[in-house]
Amino acid sequence: MEQRALRYEVLADELGGMIAERILRPGDRLPSVRTMAREKKLSISTVVQALRQLEERGQIEARPQSGFFVRAPTATHAAQLEPQPRPRRTRPVAVDISSRMMRVVTLNNRPDMVPLGAALPAPELLPIATLQRLYGQIGRHAKHLLDAASHAMINHPELVRQLVRHSLTWGQALAADEIVVTNSCTEALLLCLRAVTKPGDTVAVESPSYYLMLQLLEQLGLKALEIPTHPRLGLSVDALEIASRERRIAACLLVTNFNNPLCSLMPDEEKRRLAALTAERGIPVIEDDIFGELYFGPQRPWPLKSFDTTGNVMMCSSLSKTLIPSLRLGYVAAGRYHAEVLLQKTLTSGATNPVTQAVAARYLESTASDRHLRFLRRAFQKQVMQMSEAVLRYFPAGTRISQPQGGFVLWVELPAGGDGMTLFEEAAQAGIAIVPGELFSPGGHFRNCLRLNCGNPWSPRIEDAIRRLGAFAAAQPAMDRRADEPKAKVANCAAA
Amino acid sequence: MEQRALRYEVLADELGGMIAERILRPGDRLPSVRTMAREKKLSISTVVQALRQLEERGQIEARPQSGFFVRAPTATHAAQLEPQPRPRRTRPVAVDISSRMMRVVTLNNRPDMVPLGAALPAPELLPIATLQRLYGQIGRHAKHLLDAASHAMINHPELVRQLVRHSLTWGQALAADEIVVTNSCTEALLLCLRAVTKPGDTVAVESPSYYLMLQLLEQLGLKALEIPTHPRLGLSVDALEIASRERRIAACLLVTNFNNPLCSLMPDEEKRRLAALTAERGIPVIEDDIFGELYFGPQRPWPLKSFDTTGNVMMCSSLSKTLIPSLRLGYVAAGRYHAEVLLQKTLTSGATNPVTQAVAARYLESTASDRHLRFLRRAFQKQVMQMSEAVLRYFPAGTRISQPQGGFVLWVELPAGGDGMTLFEEAAQAGIAIVPGELFSPGGHFRNCLRLNCGNPWSPRIEDAIRRLGAFAAAQPAMDRRADEPKAKVANCAAA
Repeated sequence: MEQRALRYEVLADELGGMIAERILRPGDRLPSVRTMAREKKLSISTVVQALRQLEERGQIEARPQSGFFVRAPTATHAAQLEPQPRPRRTRPVAVDISSRMMRVVTLNNRPDMVPLGAALPAPELLPIATLQRLYGQIGRHAKHLLDAASHAMINHPELVRQLVRHSLTWGQALAADEIVVTNSCTEALLLCLRAVTKPGDTVAVESPSYYLMLQLLEQLGLKALEIPTHPRLGLSVDALEIASRERRIAACLLVTNFNNPLCSLMPDEEKRRLAALTAERGIPVIEDDIFGELYFGPQRPWPLKSFDTTGNVMMCSSLSKTLIPSLRLGYVAAGRYHAEVLLQKTLTSGATNPVTQAVAARYLESTASDRHLRFLRRAFQKQVMQMSEAVLRYFPAGTRISQPQGGFVLWVELPAGGDGMTLFEEAAQAGIAIVPGELFSPGGHFRNCLRLNCGNPWSPRIEDAIRRLGAFAAAQPAMDRRADEPKAKVANCAAA
Repeated sequence: MEQRALRYEVLADELGGMIAERILRPGDRLPSVRTMAREKKLSISTVVQALRQLEERGQIEARPQSGFFVRAPTATHAAQLEPQPRPRRTRPVAVDISSRMMRVVTLNNRPDMVPLGAALPAPELLPIATLQRLYGQIGRHAKHLLDAASHAMINHPELVRQLVRHSLTWGQALAADEIVVTNSCTEALLLCLRAVTKPGDTVAVESPSYYLMLQLLEQLGLKALEIPTHPRLGLSVDALEIASRERRIAACLLVTNFNNPLCSLMPDEEKRRLAALTAERGIPVIEDDIFGELYFGPQRPWPLKSFDTTGNVMMCSSLSKTLIPSLRLGYVAAGRYHAEVLLQKTLTSGATNPVTQAVAARYLESTASDRHLRFLRRAFQKQVMQMSEAVLRYFPAGTRISQPQGGFVLWVELPAGGDGMTLFEEAAQAGIAIVPGELFSPGGHFRNCLRLNCGNPWSPRIEDAIRRLGAFAAAQPAMDRRADEPKAKVANCAAA
């Protein structure tokens, strides 16, 4: 299964790259499925899967009776070119983003903002009625509160069983005795960091990296080492290998499936290399797989955890993105760090509410869970596409956007000289929540970037917000000066 | 109301002190109520209240038709003498208790231990059926999850209303707009510490102080300054005053109502002085009032918060001790630090589950809540008394115990030379959970002390455990050497 997945991905990436580099141009017809299968020595179904993926990415379209054609960008202002990763040598730096993050979160949380800030699904996408029914049933009949009180229980056994069951199709399933249930994915990450690091240690992170992860490092007095990350293929294992020879890295904190903000997806072979490298060098890995179920491709990508043969990977996740954020339920499969993580949980927040755990278990057991995930994947993929098209339409020339492989955020890179923080301030004034790029880097990178939440069904209100954001961006003085310059080959956004 | 409370307390303390110092001895008859009222220029009801409090403390007993008599200790081995506080000059020290605490918690959490370790109420004392009914009703009918998801709500408004309502009888009620709902009291304390301190700062704590509080300081890289604390009257405001002149104190972290482990109760006048002193010196106070409702006296003591006129006190609490630990619901009334604490909550764990909040709100609204509290107070007072008597009966001569004014733990001080950690290890081997005294001091004090949980109804199993603990203590070699020495006038347990 895994081999086949890799083959179609290779083909899709090859064709996609040719489109991105304009070797294949809008309107060009692709070779027929049969021809490609023969020439590439691939099965028909592998080629079809590759084409379907390109279609899902919005790079090609099927025309009845004619075959597949390179899709025309819906607008000519901006180009859906992804930045290429470029080796960037960095040093570990102390993290100092809290005050900026607080300002951003505070302004974004005001009522009636257009919700393009926090990565949250729209309330109307959530299975509220199902959850209410389960709460009603479970609260009334079961003795979960008493059981938990009697046995000082951290985990509800049935929830653990369901989490294991949902991992059975991965390369390697989770083990019941490595799981610790938490109040959120963020709490799981915190417990893992506390289990394997001490203040002053260096932690390797993706660049860009989710700001709440960086804030955890700041809170624990840890230094961050930014590792170059490909906007579609994830962390550079080569760069991590070099960095780990140069200095002691106490832990890696990363997302292999749909990194937030890039929504990149690390290929299986790279995951395998990463798991082997970190095990060999004795570097514990804390993996955030919170977006793992929200894939746009044909199947659920395995987490890094599935390639780990030594218990070195702690996989953290939660139901906030796939079920409902307000449930407040996460977990970690902590491998050989389980005892230490469990103790950290006991000492800091104690158990997670057992009724909540029982409700989550019953939900994961039901068919409603899989049905809802299928619905969400379709909705998010569509919304990401609509957001992408709107940004391409309304943002100034030279703007680049990510090509999400899953998840529901879009990463936007303004032309060099653009200023994401200024754009954030203008947007906040105008009632539009966004997150400026510099929050995603402790080293001051990505100042010309921003992240957009695509968790909401498309609407005229959102389209209007994107139009206004584009106008704000086009009016930035730095942008004007560079508007006529040739497109810069920026890597992951340049440092401003 | 407050003046009167103060008067009867003064009288009770005066008489209690005479009994402790054996000016009044077992069997002595107290002057009549009428005589005392006349001589002390107090109302009859004030004197009656004072006597009732002494009765509740186990120091006197009423004999029909005869009046009040000093009570005989029920055993002659040990004496219910409380240690007197003695000025002890300390320096701020880095906290390093995590590894010992982890060992203690791990051993104590094994199944089938006699539950004298963690301060937890017995499951059979909990109102499980009521909670189940509320969960069933609220989960089924309300849209709490959706509301929370739609508005990124941290607080459930109805829970806030109930918390305010329950504080209306205090000297000063909580304000709705200063409250932040949390997952536990510990989380509330953590958020407050993060709001007002930075690593390296010095925080003043009671001596002894609850080990989870000390562990928070360790986690945040804060230094602890131990302030002498009277076993019945709480923190010495004079000692704090002197300490705050000598060095910068970034915050106070303390319990004025039923300090854990001493269960001391700070008199109102001292609370007033403490609130004024800290406000004047600009020292934020984080108050843990988790045991405040579990008073043995005639009325709910006001928290320090009620004496604070400047918004300088952050009062933290939870429903873990008064309702059920497994609910996982706490809160803080953060005064003028509200915005900062709210932001810390948003950034770290996000909101607390809204169904849990709604259930707690409905519970606090019902009469079941007050009824259950009355039941719990009686149960805990009785259990503390039974535990006290058993310790006095079975522990070696020279053992001293606290006189809890509320709460449900007992602090035991072995004769000088006794070793609480050795006793803990022996007890753990024998299947008895206790907490050794040195966990309550970052400075290495209280090594001859231990804390006993009185949350469980008295049983032959518990009595047998106390008997065995007493035998272990009596057999300690250091104890033998000193057994015939005159009783040492130890203050809050001597440093070993």
